[in-house]
Amino acid sequence: MAGRIMGPPAFDDSFIQALDTLFAWRRDVRRFRPDAIDPDHLRACLAAAHRAPSVGNSRPWRFVRVSDPARRAAIAKNFSRCNAAAAEGYDAARAARYRALKLAGLNEAPEHLAVFCDDATETGLGLGRASMPETLAYSVVGAVQCFWLAARARGLGVGWVSILEPARVTEILAVPETWRLVAYLCVGHPVEEHRDPELERHGWQAEDLRGAALVER
Amino acid sequence: MAGRIMGPPAFDDSFIQALDTLFAWRRDVRRFRPDAIDPDHLRACLAAAHRAPSVGNSRPWRFVRVSDPARRAAIAKNFSRCNAAAAEGYDAARAARYRALKLAGLNEAPEHLAVFCDDATETGLGLGRASMPETLAYSVVGAVQCFWLAARARGLGVGWVSILEPARVTEILAVPETWRLVAYLCVGHPVEEHRDPELERHGWQAEDLRGAALVER
Repeated sequence: MAGRIMGPPAFDDSFIQALDTLFAWRRDVRRFRPDAIDPDHLRACLAAAHRAPSVGNSRPWRFVRVSDPARRAAIAKNFSRCNAAAAEGYDAARAARYRALKLAGLNEAPEHLAVFCDDATETGLGLGRASMPETLAYSVVGAVQCFWLAARARGLGVGWVSILEPARVTEILAVPETWRLVAYLCVGHPVEEHRDPELERHGWQAEDLRGAALVER
Repeated sequence: MAGRIMGPPAFDDSFIQALDTLFAWRRDVRRFRPDAIDPDHLRACLAAAHRAPSVGNSRPWRFVRVSDPARRAAIAKNFSRCNAAAAEGYDAARAARYRALKLAGLNEAPEHLAVFCDDATETGLGLGRASMPETLAYSVVGAVQCFWLAARARGLGVGWVSILEPARVTEILAVPETWRLVAYLCVGHPVEEHRDPELERHGWQAEDLRGAALVER
């Protein structure tokens, strides 16, 4: 599997097949059991995140574990406000369908992780982002993605909550002003597991039959 | 490994260990052999990308395979211009070190993939991005990350070139105006494989001894 100890690893067919299964069953989770997760699993997922690629090897991700009940309540309140506002952006029929969706597991998930981009980091000395400064935040997304896959491999579910006001989250969590919210993650054991996306299963959108298109130039 | 056919898969310890090895050896590659890659591998990596999480299940990623020599030359020229400009942003000693780095494999890589975010997509009906519109582009980064891991598992290297002007790339590749460049990827068989980042190995920055920090709130 992981091959020779001294040289680069070779990944065999059974690993590749299981990796493709991991991608297929990764899913965004909003229904969590309340029981705690293994701290070793959390550490391992953070280590995977820290191995993500980053522009100029800047590693600008900052993970904040949110446990304080008052802070969690303030986050949940901000979600409710943003979610109600989002519903109002749709016509009546669509808004009713929107309101019927469960879009976050903030009240059940045993772990909350807010993931920030440190816009002031000097690691990497700015290399690679003069013409595309947005790649700093993109690097944080790569870390989230590695965390997510590492978590799912360990039987944990992750849900990315984006229905929040970043400035308000920064304030609630009292992090430095140079930290920009990229993702707010709920983490825990999922109540149920699926291969199809929740938004398709609950009738928000049609099943994806298109697949990955490749444009030639 | 992938467990039961009918239910959710369970991933065993040997898979988890190999997955962690994959994260560790993923690396950004700039030194490619010129030989072509297996088209089945490219298809499989794109399929993995298409299984990335996306805000409101919007799947806004658009992959463009750049093969035309004139377009490739124009991309390489834009890279050279941006790279020279970036070097001028450092003091003399640091600029000399910058210029000694190899920051892209555009001239050797057998495959070039430009990855865009379709800002005009209606898939997902805008769900989840009213308060954080940047999550649409973040979704594309997730797809890039899945592509990258799927590629490395198959022995392929990926290099993310960010030293480009997005508007110029859009123009060179004649894609719709609503497509925003997120990543330009070089893909091919790596000449050499490493566990440590190229920028550390070539003296741009010190080795990372910090690891993943977790702030408590």
